[in-house]
Amino acid sequence: MFVKTIRLVTILAAFAAMGTCAFPSSAFAGETTAETNAVAIDTVWVLIAAFLVFFMQPGFAMVETGFTRAKNAANILMKNLMDFSIGSIAFWLIGFGIMFGTTAFGLFGTNGFFLSSANPSTADGQWQFAFWMFQVVFAATAATIVSGAMAERTKFPAYLFYSFFICALIYPVVGHWIWGNGWLASKGFIDFAGSTVVHSVGGWAALAGAILVGPRLGKYNKDGTSNAIPGHNMPLAALGVFILWFGWFGFNAGSTTSGTNLSIATIAVTTNLAAAAGAITAMFTAWFRFGKPDTSMALNGALAGLVGITAPCACVSPLSAIIIGAVAGTLVVLSVEFIDKVLHVDDPVGAISVHGICGAWGTLSAGLFAEAAYGQSSGVGAVNGLFFGGGLSQFITQLIGVLSIFAWVFGTALILFYVLRKTVGLRASDEDQLKGMDISEHGMESYAGFQIFTTE
Amino acid sequence: MFVKTIRLVTILAAFAAMGTCAFPSSAFAGETTAETNAVAIDTVWVLIAAFLVFFMQPGFAMVETGFTRAKNAANILMKNLMDFSIGSIAFWLIGFGIMFGTTAFGLFGTNGFFLSSANPSTADGQWQFAFWMFQVVFAATAATIVSGAMAERTKFPAYLFYSFFICALIYPVVGHWIWGNGWLASKGFIDFAGSTVVHSVGGWAALAGAILVGPRLGKYNKDGTSNAIPGHNMPLAALGVFILWFGWFGFNAGSTTSGTNLSIATIAVTTNLAAAAGAITAMFTAWFRFGKPDTSMALNGALAGLVGITAPCACVSPLSAIIIGAVAGTLVVLSVEFIDKVLHVDDPVGAISVHGICGAWGTLSAGLFAEAAYGQSSGVGAVNGLFFGGGLSQFITQLIGVLSIFAWVFGTALILFYVLRKTVGLRASDEDQLKGMDISEHGMESYAGFQIFTTE
Amino acid sequence: MFVKTIRLVTILAAFAAMGTCAFPSSAFAGETTAETNAVAIDTVWVLIAAFLVFFMQPGFAMVETGFTRAKNAANILMKNLMDFSIGSIAFWLIGFGIMFGTTAFGLFGTNGFFLSSANPSTADGQWQFAFWMFQVVFAATAATIVSGAMAERTKFPAYLFYSFFICALIYPVVGHWIWGNGWLASKGFIDFAGSTVVHSVGGWAALAGAILVGPRLGKYNKDGTSNAIPGHNMPLAALGVFILWFGWFGFNAGSTTSGTNLSIATIAVTTNLAAAAGAITAMFTAWFRFGKPDTSMALNGALAGLVGITAPCACVSPLSAIIIGAVAGTLVVLSVEFIDKVLHVDDPVGAISVHGICGAWGTLSAGLFAEAAYGQSSGVGAVNGLFFGGGLSQFITQLIGVLSIFAWVFGTALILFYVLRKTVGLRASDEDQLKGMDISEHGMESYAGFQIFTTE
Repeated sequence: MFVKTIRLVTILAAFAAMGTCAFPSSAFAGETTAETNAVAIDTVWVLIAAFLVFFMQPGFAMVETGFTRAKNAANILMKNLMDFSIGSIAFWLIGFGIMFGTTAFGLFGTNGFFLSSANPSTADGQWQFAFWMFQVVFAATAATIVSGAMAERTKFPAYLFYSFFICALIYPVVGHWIWGNGWLASKGFIDFAGSTVVHSVGGWAALAGAILVGPRLGKYNKDGTSNAIPGHNMPLAALGVFILWFGWFGFNAGSTTSGTNLSIATIAVTTNLAAAAGAITAMFTAWFRFGKPDTSMALNGALAGLVGITAPCACVSPLSAIIIGAVAGTLVVLSVEFIDKVLHVDDPVGAISVHGICGAWGTLSAGLFAEAAYGQSSGVGAVNGLFFGGGLSQFITQLIGVLSIFAWVFGTALILFYVLRKTVGLRASDEDQLKGMDISEHGMESYAGFQIFTTE
Repeated sequence: MFVKTIRLVTILAAFAAMGTCAFPSSAFAGETTAETNAVAIDTVWVLIAAFLVFFMQPGFAMVETGFTRAKNAANILMKNLMDFSIGSIAFWLIGFGIMFGTTAFGLFGTNGFFLSSANPSTADGQWQFAFWMFQVVFAATAATIVSGAMAERTKFPAYLFYSFFICALIYPVVGHWIWGNGWLASKGFIDFAGSTVVHSVGGWAALAGAILVGPRLGKYNKDGTSNAIPGHNMPLAALGVFILWFGWFGFNAGSTTSGTNLSIATIAVTTNLAAAAGAITAMFTAWFRFGKPDTSMALNGALAGLVGITAPCACVSPLSAIIIGAVAGTLVVLSVEFIDKVLHVDDPVGAISVHGICGAWGTLSAGLFAEAAYGQSSGVGAVNGLFFGGGLSQFITQLIGVLSIFAWVFGTALILFYVLRKTVGLRASDEDQLKGMDISEHGMESYAGFQIFTTE
Repeated sequence: MFVKTIRLVTILAAFAAMGTCAFPSSAFAGETTAETNAVAIDTVWVLIAAFLVFFMQPGFAMVETGFTRAKNAANILMKNLMDFSIGSIAFWLIGFGIMFGTTAFGLFGTNGFFLSSANPSTADGQWQFAFWMFQVVFAATAATIVSGAMAERTKFPAYLFYSFFICALIYPVVGHWIWGNGWLASKGFIDFAGSTVVHSVGGWAALAGAILVGPRLGKYNKDGTSNAIPGHNMPLAALGVFILWFGWFGFNAGSTTSGTNLSIATIAVTTNLAAAAGAITAMFTAWFRFGKPDTSMALNGALAGLVGITAPCACVSPLSAIIIGAVAGTLVVLSVEFIDKVLHVDDPVGAISVHGICGAWGTLSAGLFAEAAYGQSSGVGAVNGLFFGGGLSQFITQLIGVLSIFAWVFGTALILFYVLRKTVGLRASDEDQLKGMDISEHGMESYAGFQIFTTE
């Protein structure tokens, strides 16, 4: 009567002797047809892609931990755990409905909260569950980007509130505009897997947060120069980048939300080539500017390439993907330097550059490199970008989207962090920063027994 | 004639020019039908799920390593490697047949040893291989739980014997009772993915082992108070928890053993929400009790939520999943404290609480929260728990199962570890514990070159 | 008009209320049939397998980092990032065409460069993309093996040139001979997933490189004895091995390039059992020879078992897989000792033994253990090896392949590294080795803040 016994029912004569590991019977009784199989293939694909995107969480956690100091490791890990956990609940309660509910004026959704309309007895209901699973990990990806930029000096309670609001409200509104029948969707804005929806949202929120929390103690000198504060664990950071690259295959190719859409193959290829190109150009850019091929810059270059290709991955050729990734890899090095040395915004892991700047670049690049042959088969549509005879119109649409999302996210995040600063408090005291956030916020050490010299 | 040449045969005209990367031909020649595709979808799903569950091995290894001291890292890693390796051989030789062979009196299986009945020339035979692959990683999961609870003071050779016996005998008997047409299966006991079959088995064996091996040197004072012995690497522990969460999607959703069973979608959702809820409540519980939000407790809370939802994941709603996970997250914090401070059983990583206690809770919770609409579509059956109008009967069945499994596992594990203590020896000498198990048992250091201060 | 809006079109009445997360529509419009579903299953399987094989990159990176010294970590990580990145571009530009293009005299392919023949508008074109994705991660696996053997003393720029040439030329030629309609393919040589094509190629190139770059400073004494230079991070090394094991399921079972070929199940089982057996016998071999069960040897034993089973995984029984893995596990320990103490070739991570020697063993083992029942269903063909009544002929074919590939790879790699030594320079100066490659080549530390005592 129960699942394992169903599983055990002897369906096939060949199993009669042993009697236990027979083929499972399908749950939704009825004929097996090509159509039911196609639904199963899509569901399996979307879920596996969702699991891969979930796995990007430890990718972010390891990158952020590796690029910051040992005394703040448990804090950044805890933030990564909590933005996903709180984000999951917030997206279930509110966010998903705001993002995918029936639109109100193209601005936000109005129903579908806490999966209320998903009926587990129907294939449609199960699809809603699968779709939700795929979407919640995207929401949490947007959320988790911010912890890196605000690392090493942000109070933990403030971060919990932030996690709730970005997944319940700030992110879902953007998602609705672009993926949820909102006003940008109806303009033909292209953001296949979320260079803007996910990465720029995270990047612009990170920018607002980093500005309002201020730089880490000891980051900037009185004469305006900046001190490098090296991260404490390059193997973790590299592991994190490789994990992100791995998860990104789910992020981009999963965004067909269909395994029967064969363009998942092209998407995997463009994703991989852009990442490779980004790593290479970031390495050479750093080499030329700083005299040595810095490992952390090359790692960020791979991420930059991935962020860049996320919007156009389903509508550009492999060669265009390489160019898009290569530009992103160069851009991220210059942007990290600019944000640090010119803007004096302290972003310990380069999150604003990787996700915000390269997310914008990637989104715009769709207006330049899109080719109808690619976009048509993936479902993006038969669009040609500026470089392929399509004129400026798609690029302008992309630009409108990039700017609108910047305005919404940067604006609301500024308000959010400002309110948090005035209420629960945003910035850890100098003393707490000196001791490290692990001791001051969590009462623990991350590397008990190791001899560690902490800077500042 | 060989596979790559088969792969290369030019099937499609479009490939004639290039001639090499044609579509593969199916091995089991014959017509492609909806039925053969359904078998393929199920096989692909079960194997990918099995790979994800395999990946939980490094999850456990990292958690256990991170939560213990640097001087014992190579030892705990080796135990994790060996319980899987020896467990794989033991389960192939004996365990699988005991678990899924034709039942003798509902107590144990009697055939199917070393995959003898699996004929690779048939689809049925291949299904046996796929099913075995899925089951062996479950067996090894039960096995690997114990190394954490007995960490830092258990002799390595004893652990090798233990690994063999749990995968050959102790675990498969439980598996037979519940998943292999045994007596609990016929009572309608619900344990969809193994809160009891896997996690409680590991947890109760860990309890027996931790009792018999005794506490680590320096853990308890003469006045009965307990010393905290902090783990040495929080990033590894956090990475391990994220890896486990990732693998758990395969563990739970894979337990349909069918990708055409669309309830894999609900299962993924309930699994994720319970984990998120567990992390959150564990954090707050620790915060209230200890004054700070301890990162390691929140990490264990996520695991607690996952263990809890494992039994009922396929028969409860998302909201119930959140409640089940939230209770588990609170429970694990209280249980860790109780086992340490009241029972004085030294469990360095909290394995008994996470897997034993929360496994029991999760199993019982199926009797409280089950809803027919969910269970029916997944194959659990149209069961309603106490809170949904089903009365007490399912809860009582669950309780009988929990208690029976406790009796069997705790009893046999006590005997096993007692015999090992009297023969090969169970507990490392004080001197060896002081030097660390890495030096004393394996003649090596885990962190050569790092300055490490070891406690005790 | 764009993808997310397509995704949002309300196809099903049940979704009308919410209107947003309807089933995706297939991109290649037309009827859904059993045949289109089979293509989708194969594509999904090959891509997921490719992602798993990609994930072996951090596996190698962590193993190599863990088994070497802290002062060289950022360097080895960067090499792992760059061999994949440069390798991806090289394989796209040149390698794939050399490997799978129309053959010239059975020696190399002549078309298909930079995916020029893949048309995204057709299912065939998408298959080419999927196939390329699967192949590029194999090429990069061959490439990445070398960095471990040449670790801690090889100049970074030389490694970049090497990465290009192995993925553009040396590896693809081997691939063409065996998997691309080349002369070994037509002889019936069996190398299902690449014991020779991938692992021996990496291993023999590593041998050439390690010879030409010379041993690390301080590795060998004047009296000919050898000093152990312990790795700095066993948890990372163990994590790397588990990641590799995980990825190997994609490597071997993915090599059907078909999810509708049910022998993916047998392949997963043989792969797993061989790895387990290799870990166990390596542990015991080390125990007998050195007095203690060395963790790093057991880890290498698991890899040895995996490398060994890679060629025969689809044509041998589970029992044979265990034997093949067990032999590999013993062999790797003896080989590591022989190469170090007798040949005086300095291979910090044992890559030559794991990939070269065990790759050769695995390839030969197919000629001994192949059974028609297994090979027939997977597509290898109805071959019986020497131990199953097939006589010596298959073994001899295997031997010819092993020797030919050794000659080609060792020869060309010697030339390549010799030219690099004479031009860009191959070996880091003694001073740079003392400082560590991280400082000297990349201007950074991997573990800022940690107190580290570097040997030599």
